[in-house]
Amino acid sequence: MPKLILVRHGQSQWNLENRFTGWWDVDLTDKGVEEAMAAGVLLKEKGVLPTRAFTSVQTRAIRTLHLALHQCNRLWIPETKDWHLNERHYGGLTGLNKQETRDKHGDEQVHIWRRSFDVPPPELEKGSEFDLSDDPRYAGIDVPQTESLKLTIERVLPYWQETILPYVNAGETVMISAHGNSLRALVKHLSGISDDDITGLEIPTGQPIIYDFENDGVSGLVPGERYYLKDS
Amino acid sequence: MPKLILVRHGQSQWNLENRFTGWWDVDLTDKGVEEAMAAGVLLKEKGVLPTRAFTSVQTRAIRTLHLALHQCNRLWIPETKDWHLNERHYGGLTGLNKQETRDKHGDEQVHIWRRSFDVPPPELEKGSEFDLSDDPRYAGIDVPQTESLKLTIERVLPYWQETILPYVNAGETVMISAHGNSLRALVKHLSGISDDDITGLEIPTGQPIIYDFENDGVSGLVPGERYYLKDS
Repeated sequence: MPKLILVRHGQSQWNLENRFTGWWDVDLTDKGVEEAMAAGVLLKEKGVLPTRAFTSVQTRAIRTLHLALHQCNRLWIPETKDWHLNERHYGGLTGLNKQETRDKHGDEQVHIWRRSFDVPPPELEKGSEFDLSDDPRYAGIDVPQTESLKLTIERVLPYWQETILPYVNAGETVMISAHGNSLRALVKHLSGISDDDITGLEIPTGQPIIYDFENDGVSGLVPGERYYLKDS
Repeated sequence: MPKLILVRHGQSQWNLENRFTGWWDVDLTDKGVEEAMAAGVLLKEKGVLPTRAFTSVQTRAIRTLHLALHQCNRLWIPETKDWHLNERHYGGLTGLNKQETRDKHGDEQVHIWRRSFDVPPPELEKGSEFDLSDDPRYAGIDVPQTESLKLTIERVLPYWQETILPYVNAGETVMISAHGNSLRALVKHLSGISDDDITGLEIPTGQPIIYDFENDGVSGLVPGERYYLKDS
Protein backbone atom coordinates (compact mmCIF):
# COMPACT_ATOMS: atom_id res chain seq x y z
CA MET A 1 0.00 0.00 0.00
CA PRO A 2 1.36 3.46 -0.88
CA LYS A 3 2.61 5.96 1.64
CA LEU A 4 2.63 9.74 1.42
CA ILE A 5 5.56 11.59 3.02
CA LEU A 6 5.13 15.27 3.88
CA VAL A 7 8.12 17.33 4.99
CA ARG A 8 8.16 21.01 5.89
CA HIS A 9 11.45 22.65 4.93
CA GLY A 10 14.13 23.04 7.61
CA GLN A 11 14.65 26.34 9.41
CA SER A 12 15.12 29.29 7.04
CA GLN A 13 16.93 32.53 7.76
CA TRP A 14 13.61 34.32 8.18
CA ASN A 15 12.15 31.58 10.37
CA LEU A 16 15.12 32.35 12.59
CA GLU A 17 14.49 36.12 12.41
CA ASN A 18 10.75 35.60 12.90
CA ARG A 19 9.84 37.48 9.71
CA PHE A 20 6.88 36.81 7.41
CA THR A 21 8.41 35.09 4.37
CA GLY A 22 5.68 33.74 2.10
CA TRP A 23 6.84 33.65 -1.51
CA TRP A 24 10.10 35.48 -0.82
CA ASP A 25 12.97 33.13 -1.55
CA VAL A 26 14.93 32.75 1.66
CA ASP A 27 17.55 30.03 2.07
CA LEU A 28 18.01 27.47 4.84
CA THR A 29 20.12 28.19 7.90
CA ASP A 30 22.81 25.70 8.95
CA LYS A 31 20.26 24.33 11.41
CA GLY A 32 17.77 23.99 8.54
CA VAL A 33 20.34 22.02 6.54
CA GLU A 34 20.84 19.70 9.50
CA GLU A 35 17.09 19.23 9.93
CA ALA A 36 16.72 18.32 6.25
CA MET A 37 19.57 15.82 6.41
CA ALA A 38 18.14 14.30 9.59
CA ALA A 39 14.82 13.82 7.79
CA GLY A 40 16.61 11.83 5.09
CA VAL A 41 18.50 9.73 7.63
CA LEU A 42 15.18 8.92 9.32
CA LEU A 43 13.61 7.89 5.99
CA LYS A 44 16.56 5.58 5.40
CA GLU A 45 16.51 4.10 8.90
CA LYS A 46 12.78 3.44 8.73
CA GLY A 47 12.99 2.11 5.19
CA VAL A 48 10.38 4.59 3.97
CA LEU A 49 11.90 5.40 0.60
CA PRO A 50 10.16 7.76 -1.81
CA THR A 51 9.82 6.79 -5.46
CA ARG A 52 8.72 10.26 -6.63
CA ALA A 53 9.03 13.77 -5.24
CA PHE A 54 7.21 17.08 -5.49
CA THR A 55 8.28 20.42 -4.14
CA SER A 56 7.63 24.13 -4.55
CA VAL A 57 9.81 26.48 -6.61
CA GLN A 58 11.26 27.96 -3.43
CA THR A 59 14.90 27.28 -2.58
CA ARG A 60 14.30 26.29 1.06
CA ALA A 61 11.90 23.50 0.12
CA ILE A 62 13.92 22.31 -2.88
CA ARG A 63 17.13 22.12 -0.85
CA THR A 64 15.31 20.32 1.96
CA LEU A 65 14.16 17.75 -0.59
CA HIS A 66 17.62 17.33 -2.08
CA LEU A 67 19.40 17.10 1.26
CA ALA A 68 16.92 14.49 2.49
CA LEU A 69 17.01 12.45 -0.73
CA HIS A 70 20.81 12.46 -0.67
CA GLN A 71 20.83 10.97 2.82
CA CYS A 72 18.47 8.14 1.85
CA ASN A 73 20.19 7.49 -1.51
CA ARG A 74 17.16 8.56 -3.52
CA LEU A 75 18.43 11.61 -5.39
CA TRP A 76 17.67 9.74 -8.61
CA ILE A 77 13.87 9.67 -8.27
CA PRO A 78 11.81 11.95 -10.53
CA GLU A 79 11.10 15.31 -8.99
CA THR A 80 8.66 18.04 -9.97
CA LYS A 81 8.84 21.63 -8.75
CA ASP A 82 5.64 23.64 -8.94
CA TRP A 83 4.53 27.02 -7.57
CA HIS A 84 1.20 25.52 -6.49
CA LEU A 85 3.10 24.05 -3.52
CA ASN A 86 4.60 27.43 -2.53
CA GLU A 87 4.11 28.92 0.90
CA ARG A 88 1.07 31.15 1.47
CA HIS A 89 1.76 34.64 0.09
CA TYR A 90 1.79 37.03 3.06
CA GLY A 91 1.15 40.13 0.97
CA GLY A 92 2.15 43.39 2.62
CA LEU A 93 3.42 41.55 5.70
CA THR A 94 6.29 40.03 3.69
CA GLY A 95 9.62 40.94 5.25
CA LEU A 96 8.17 42.26 8.51
CA ASN A 97 9.03 40.63 11.81
CA LYS A 98 6.30 40.06 14.38
CA GLN A 99 7.12 43.20 16.37
CA GLU A 100 7.21 45.40 13.27
CA THR A 101 3.87 43.97 12.21
CA ARG A 102 2.29 44.72 15.59
CA ASP A 103 3.71 48.24 15.59
CA LYS A 104 2.37 48.88 12.11
CA HIS A 105 -1.01 47.18 12.26
CA GLY A 106 -1.84 46.64 15.95
CA ASP A 107 -2.05 43.46 18.05
CA GLU A 108 -5.66 42.67 17.28
CA GLN A 109 -5.31 42.93 13.50
CA VAL A 110 -2.16 40.78 13.53
CA HIS A 111 -3.98 38.13 15.56
CA ILE A 112 -6.79 38.11 12.97
CA TRP A 113 -4.37 37.64 10.07
CA ARG A 114 -2.42 34.92 11.80
CA ARG A 115 -5.39 32.93 12.98
CA SER A 116 -8.19 33.58 10.52
CA PHE A 117 -8.95 31.11 7.79
CA ASP A 118 -10.10 33.47 5.08
CA VAL A 119 -8.91 37.01 5.86
CA PRO A 120 -5.88 37.79 3.70
CA PRO A 121 -3.30 40.37 4.80
CA PRO A 122 -3.18 43.64 2.83
CA GLU A 123 -1.83 43.27 -0.70
CA LEU A 124 1.85 43.74 -1.35
CA GLU A 125 2.37 47.29 -2.60
CA LYS A 126 3.25 47.64 -6.28
CA GLY A 127 6.95 48.25 -6.66
CA SER A 128 7.68 46.78 -3.22
CA GLU A 129 11.14 45.27 -2.93
CA PHE A 130 9.33 41.98 -2.33
CA ASP A 131 7.27 42.11 -5.55
CA LEU A 132 7.97 38.94 -7.53
CA SER A 133 6.01 39.79 -10.68
CA ASP A 134 9.24 39.98 -12.69
CA ASP A 135 10.92 36.91 -11.19
CA PRO A 136 11.63 34.56 -14.13
CA ARG A 137 10.48 31.55 -12.12
CA TYR A 138 6.96 33.01 -12.22
CA ALA A 139 6.95 33.91 -15.91
CA GLY A 140 3.45 33.38 -17.27
CA ILE A 141 1.98 33.01 -13.77
CA ASP A 142 -0.37 35.54 -12.21
CA VAL A 143 1.58 36.01 -8.96
CA PRO A 144 -0.81 36.64 -6.07
CA GLN A 145 -0.31 39.87 -4.11
CA THR A 146 -1.66 38.29 -0.92
CA GLU A 147 -3.29 35.02 0.20
CA SER A 148 -5.40 33.78 3.08
CA LEU A 149 -5.05 30.13 4.10
CA LYS A 150 -8.31 29.57 2.22
CA LEU A 151 -6.83 30.98 -0.99
CA THR A 152 -3.71 28.87 -0.46
CA ILE A 153 -5.84 25.74 -0.16
CA GLU A 154 -7.69 26.69 -3.34
CA ARG A 155 -4.49 26.37 -5.37
CA VAL A 156 -2.85 23.49 -3.45
CA LEU A 157 -5.78 21.07 -3.51
CA PRO A 158 -6.43 21.00 -7.28
CA TYR A 159 -2.71 20.38 -7.78
CA TRP A 160 -2.85 17.53 -5.29
CA GLN A 161 -5.94 16.03 -6.90
CA GLU A 162 -4.88 16.35 -10.51
CA THR A 163 -1.11 15.95 -10.44
CA ILE A 164 0.08 14.18 -7.28
CA LEU A 165 -2.77 11.86 -6.25
CA PRO A 166 -2.66 9.80 -9.47
CA TYR A 167 0.88 8.68 -8.52
CA VAL A 168 -0.30 7.68 -5.04
CA ASN A 169 -3.16 5.76 -6.62
CA ALA A 170 -0.63 4.04 -8.90
CA GLY A 171 1.16 2.73 -5.80
CA GLU A 172 4.05 5.16 -5.61
CA THR A 173 5.57 6.44 -2.37
CA VAL A 174 5.33 10.18 -2.97
CA MET A 175 7.32 12.71 -0.95
CA ILE A 176 6.24 16.35 -0.82
CA SER A 177 8.72 18.90 0.50
CA ALA A 178 6.85 22.13 1.06
CA HIS A 179 5.83 24.85 3.51
CA GLY A 180 3.81 25.38 6.69
CA ASN A 181 0.67 26.53 4.92
CA SER A 182 0.79 24.47 1.73
CA LEU A 183 1.18 21.42 3.98
CA ARG A 184 -1.66 22.62 6.23
CA ALA A 185 -3.79 22.65 3.09
CA LEU A 186 -2.99 19.00 2.44
CA VAL A 187 -3.34 17.88 6.06
CA LYS A 188 -6.68 19.69 6.36
CA HIS A 189 -7.94 17.76 3.35
CA LEU A 190 -6.44 14.37 4.17
CA SER A 191 -7.25 14.40 7.88
CA GLY A 192 -10.59 16.21 7.61
CA ILE A 193 -9.73 19.16 9.87
CA SER A 194 -12.19 22.05 10.22
CA ASP A 195 -11.57 25.60 9.00
CA ASP A 196 -11.36 26.79 12.61
CA ASP A 197 -8.94 24.13 13.79
CA ILE A 198 -6.52 24.12 10.86
CA THR A 199 -5.14 27.62 11.50
CA GLY A 200 -3.84 26.47 14.88
CA LEU A 201 -2.18 23.29 13.62
CA GLU A 202 1.59 23.58 13.72
CA ILE A 203 3.64 21.61 11.18
CA PRO A 204 7.17 21.14 12.58
CA THR A 205 10.18 21.74 10.33
CA GLY A 206 12.09 18.76 8.92
CA GLN A 207 9.85 16.18 10.58
CA PRO A 208 8.43 13.63 8.10
CA ILE A 209 4.66 13.17 8.43
CA ILE A 210 3.29 9.93 6.99
CA TYR A 211 -0.06 8.87 5.64
CA ASP A 212 -0.49 5.18 4.91
CA PHE A 213 -3.10 4.74 2.20
CA GLU A 214 -5.45 1.80 2.53
CA ASN A 215 -8.16 0.34 0.37
CA ASP A 216 -11.46 0.85 2.18
CA GLY A 217 -13.33 -1.48 -0.17
CA VAL A 218 -15.74 1.27 -1.20
CA SER A 219 -14.05 4.39 -2.58
CA GLY A 220 -10.64 2.80 -3.13
CA LEU A 221 -7.42 4.13 -1.59
CA VAL A 222 -7.98 6.43 1.37
CA PRO A 223 -5.46 7.96 3.78
CA GLY A 224 -5.21 6.51 7.28
CA GLU A 225 -4.34 8.48 10.41
CA ARG A 226 -1.32 10.71 9.95
CA TYR A 227 1.71 10.14 12.14
CA TYR A 228 5.25 11.34 12.59
CA LEU A 229 7.77 8.91 11.16
CA LYS A 230 9.99 9.38 14.22
CA ASP A 231 7.21 7.90 16.40
CA SER A 232 6.64 4.80 14.27
CA MET B 1 19.89 32.59 -29.35
CA PRO B 2 19.93 29.56 -27.06
CA LYS B 3 23.01 28.27 -25.29
CA LEU B 4 23.83 24.73 -24.24
CA ILE B 5 25.79 24.26 -21.02
CA LEU B 6 27.64 20.97 -20.46
CA VAL B 7 29.19 20.19 -17.08
CA ARG B 8 31.05 17.06 -16.10
CA HIS B 9 30.49 16.19 -12.44
CA GLY B 10 33.08 17.27 -9.90
CA GLN B 11 35.71 14.87 -8.58
CA SER B 12 34.23 11.64 -7.22
CA GLN B 13 35.73 9.33 -4.64
CA TRP B 14 36.73 6.89 -7.37
CA ASN B 15 38.14 9.61 -9.62
CA LEU B 16 40.39 10.31 -6.66
CA GLU B 17 41.25 6.62 -6.24
CA ASN B 18 41.71 6.20 -10.00
CA ARG B 19 39.19 3.35 -10.22
CA PHE B 20 36.86 2.53 -13.11
CA THR B 21 33.44 3.72 -11.97
CA GLY B 22 30.96 3.59 -14.84
CA TRP B 23 27.45 3.01 -13.57
CA TRP B 24 28.52 2.41 -9.98
CA ASP B 25 27.07 5.16 -7.82
CA VAL B 26 30.00 6.93 -6.20
CA ASP B 27 29.57 10.26 -4.44
CA LEU B 28 31.53 13.51 -4.83
CA THR B 29 34.60 14.25 -2.74
CA ASP B 30 34.86 17.57 -0.89
CA LYS B 31 36.92 18.80 -3.82
CA GLY B 32 34.14 17.65 -6.18
CA VAL B 33 31.59 19.63 -4.15
CA GLU B 34 33.79 22.72 -4.43
CA GLU B 35 34.17 22.23 -8.19
CA ALA B 36 30.41 21.96 -8.61
CA MET B 37 29.80 25.10 -6.54
CA ALA B 38 32.47 26.97 -8.50
CA ALA B 39 30.72 26.02 -11.74
CA GLY B 40 27.52 27.62 -10.42
CA VAL B 41 29.34 30.76 -9.30
CA LEU B 42 30.83 31.06 -12.79
CA LEU B 43 27.38 30.68 -14.41
CA LYS B 44 26.11 33.46 -12.17
CA GLU B 45 29.09 35.75 -12.80
CA LYS B 46 28.84 35.31 -16.56
CA GLY B 47 25.07 35.63 -16.54
CA VAL B 48 24.65 32.29 -18.31
CA LEU B 49 21.57 31.05 -16.47
CA PRO B 50 19.96 27.74 -17.40
CA THR B 51 16.20 27.56 -17.81
CA ARG B 52 16.04 23.73 -17.86
CA ALA B 53 18.35 20.95 -16.68
CA PHE B 54 19.06 17.34 -17.52
CA THR B 55 21.25 14.90 -15.64
CA SER B 56 21.89 11.19 -15.24
CA VAL B 57 20.48 9.06 -12.42
CA GLN B 58 23.91 8.96 -10.77
CA THR B 59 24.45 10.82 -7.51
CA ARG B 60 27.69 12.56 -8.53
CA ALA B 61 26.08 14.22 -11.56
CA ILE B 62 22.80 15.06 -9.78
CA ARG B 63 24.61 16.66 -6.84
CA THR B 64 26.87 18.59 -9.21
CA LEU B 65 23.75 19.95 -10.90
CA HIS B 66 22.10 20.87 -7.60
CA LEU B 67 25.19 22.49 -6.13
CA ALA B 68 25.74 24.55 -9.29
CA LEU B 69 22.08 25.58 -9.58
CA HIS B 70 22.03 26.62 -5.94
CA GLN B 71 24.98 28.96 -6.48
CA CYS B 72 23.34 30.66 -9.47
CA ASN B 73 19.87 30.82 -7.84
CA ARG B 74 18.32 28.45 -10.36
CA LEU B 75 17.32 25.48 -8.22
CA TRP B 76 13.73 26.13 -9.30
CA ILE B 77 14.17 25.24 -12.99
CA PRO B 78 12.66 21.96 -14.24
CA GLU B 79 15.10 19.07 -14.09
CA THR B 80 14.97 15.64 -15.65
CA LYS B 81 17.11 12.70 -14.57
CA ASP B 82 17.59 9.91 -17.07
CA TRP B 83 19.85 6.87 -17.30
CA HIS B 84 20.58 7.63 -20.96
CA LEU B 85 22.97 10.31 -19.67
CA ASN B 86 24.81 7.87 -17.38
CA GLU B 87 28.54 7.30 -17.61
CA ARG B 88 29.78 4.55 -19.94
CA HIS B 89 29.39 1.15 -18.28
CA TYR B 90 32.89 -0.25 -17.75
CA GLY B 91 31.76 -3.86 -17.42
CA GLY B 92 34.21 -6.13 -15.65
CA LEU B 93 36.62 -3.26 -15.07
CA THR B 94 34.19 -1.62 -12.63
CA GLY B 95 35.85 -1.11 -9.26
CA LEU B 96 39.39 -1.86 -10.46
CA ASN B 97 42.10 0.79 -10.25
CA LYS B 98 44.49 1.24 -13.13
CA GLN B 99 47.23 -0.90 -11.60
CA GLU B 100 44.85 -3.74 -10.76
CA THR B 101 43.53 -3.61 -14.31
CA ARG B 102 47.04 -3.83 -15.79
CA ASP B 103 47.95 -6.69 -13.47
CA LYS B 104 44.79 -8.58 -14.40
CA HIS B 105 44.61 -7.92 -18.13
CA GLY B 106 48.04 -6.66 -19.27
CA ASP B 107 49.19 -3.22 -20.42
CA GLU B 108 48.34 -3.68 -24.07
CA GLN B 109 44.77 -4.82 -23.49
CA VAL B 110 44.13 -1.99 -21.05
CA HIS B 111 45.39 0.52 -23.59
CA ILE B 112 42.99 -0.92 -26.19
CA TRP B 113 39.99 -0.63 -23.87
CA ARG B 114 40.87 2.89 -22.79
CA ARG B 115 41.54 4.24 -26.26
CA SER B 116 39.42 2.20 -28.65
CA PHE B 117 36.13 3.55 -29.90
CA ASP B 118 34.20 0.33 -30.22
CA VAL B 119 35.88 -2.42 -28.18
CA PRO B 120 33.94 -2.89 -24.94
CA PRO B 121 35.62 -4.26 -21.81
CA PRO B 122 34.63 -7.79 -20.71
CA GLU B 123 31.10 -8.02 -19.35
CA LEU B 124 30.49 -7.62 -15.66
CA GLU B 125 30.26 -11.08 -14.11
CA LYS B 126 26.79 -12.18 -13.01
CA GLY B 127 26.48 -11.82 -9.27
CA SER B 128 29.36 -9.34 -9.11
CA GLU B 129 29.13 -6.92 -6.21
CA PHE B 130 28.86 -4.23 -8.88
CA ASP B 131 25.86 -5.78 -10.65
CA LEU B 132 23.07 -3.20 -10.75
CA SER B 133 20.33 -5.37 -12.24
CA ASP B 134 18.35 -5.19 -9.01
CA ASP B 135 18.90 -1.51 -8.29
CA PRO B 136 15.42 0.06 -8.10
CA ARG B 137 16.56 3.08 -10.13
CA TYR B 138 16.96 0.73 -13.10
CA ALA B 139 13.66 -1.10 -12.68
CA GLY B 140 12.32 -1.94 -16.12
CA ILE B 141 15.61 -1.07 -17.83
CA ASP B 142 17.87 -3.61 -19.46
CA VAL B 143 21.06 -2.63 -17.61
CA PRO B 144 24.10 -3.08 -19.89
CA GLN B 145 26.84 -5.39 -18.63
CA THR B 146 29.51 -3.41 -20.51
CA GLU B 147 29.73 -0.56 -23.02
CA SER B 148 32.23 0.78 -25.52
CA LEU B 149 32.21 4.52 -26.22
CA LYS B 150 30.34 3.64 -29.42
CA LEU B 151 27.60 1.88 -27.46
CA THR B 152 27.43 4.82 -25.08
CA ILE B 153 26.93 7.20 -27.98
CA GLU B 154 24.19 4.97 -29.34
CA ARG B 155 22.06 5.59 -26.26
CA VAL B 156 23.06 9.21 -25.55
CA LEU B 157 22.42 10.63 -29.01
CA PRO B 158 18.80 9.48 -29.47
CA TYR B 159 18.04 10.94 -26.04
CA TRP B 160 19.66 14.22 -27.07
CA GLN B 161 17.79 14.32 -30.35
CA GLU B 162 14.39 13.32 -29.08
CA THR B 163 14.24 14.75 -25.57
CA ILE B 164 16.76 17.58 -25.07
CA LEU B 165 17.20 19.22 -28.48
CA PRO B 166 13.53 20.27 -28.78
CA TYR B 167 14.03 22.52 -25.73
CA VAL B 168 17.13 24.07 -27.30
CA ASN B 169 15.17 24.65 -30.49
CA ALA B 170 12.45 26.29 -28.41
CA GLY B 171 15.01 28.84 -27.22
CA GLU B 172 15.77 27.43 -23.78
CA THR B 173 19.19 27.55 -22.13
CA VAL B 174 19.65 23.88 -21.32
CA MET B 175 22.21 22.63 -18.81
CA ILE B 176 23.37 19.01 -18.87
CA SER B 177 25.27 17.69 -15.86
CA ALA B 178 26.75 14.34 -16.82
CA HIS B 179 29.88 12.23 -17.19
CA GLY B 180 33.14 12.06 -19.13
CA ASN B 181 31.83 9.66 -21.75
CA SER B 182 28.19 10.72 -22.03
CA LEU B 183 29.51 14.25 -22.60
CA ARG B 184 32.09 12.96 -25.11
CA ALA B 185 29.15 11.50 -27.01
CA LEU B 186 27.49 14.92 -27.18
CA VAL B 187 30.68 16.84 -28.01
CA LYS B 188 31.55 14.34 -30.75
CA HIS B 189 28.17 14.95 -32.34
CA LEU B 190 27.98 18.72 -31.84
CA SER B 191 31.60 19.46 -32.82
CA GLY B 192 31.91 16.80 -35.51
CA ILE B 193 34.87 14.94 -33.99
CA SER B 194 36.08 11.69 -35.58
CA ASP B 195 35.86 8.24 -33.98
CA ASP B 196 39.66 8.21 -33.63
CA ASP B 197 39.97 11.64 -32.06
CA ILE B 198 37.09 11.51 -29.59
CA THR B 199 38.62 8.83 -27.35
CA GLY B 200 41.54 11.16 -26.59
CA LEU B 201 39.41 14.22 -25.79
CA GLU B 202 39.46 15.01 -22.08
CA ILE B 203 36.43 16.69 -20.52
CA PRO B 204 37.55 18.49 -17.35
CA THR B 205 35.46 18.14 -14.17
CA GLY B 206 33.24 21.03 -13.07
CA GLN B 207 34.19 23.24 -16.01
CA PRO B 208 31.15 24.54 -17.94
CA ILE B 209 31.45 24.03 -21.71
CA ILE B 210 29.21 26.27 -23.82
CA TYR B 211 27.72 25.95 -27.27
CA ASP B 212 26.02 29.03 -28.66
CA PHE B 213 23.37 27.98 -31.13
CA GLU B 214 22.95 30.12 -34.23
CA ASN B 215 20.56 30.15 -37.11
CA ASP B 216 22.53 29.24 -40.23
CA GLY B 217 19.68 30.23 -42.53
CA VAL B 218 19.52 26.75 -44.04
CA SER B 219 18.97 23.98 -41.52
CA GLY B 220 17.91 26.25 -38.63
CA LEU B 221 19.68 26.32 -35.27
CA VAL B 222 23.19 24.86 -35.32
CA PRO B 223 25.83 24.78 -32.62
CA GLY B 224 28.81 27.14 -32.94
CA GLU B 225 32.33 26.42 -31.72
CA ARG B 226 32.41 25.07 -28.19
CA TYR B 227 34.27 27.03 -25.54
CA TYR B 228 34.93 27.01 -21.83
CA LEU B 229 32.81 29.54 -20.00
CA LYS B 230 35.83 30.56 -17.90
CA ASP B 231 37.59 31.74 -21.07
CA SER B 232 34.71 33.85 -22.36
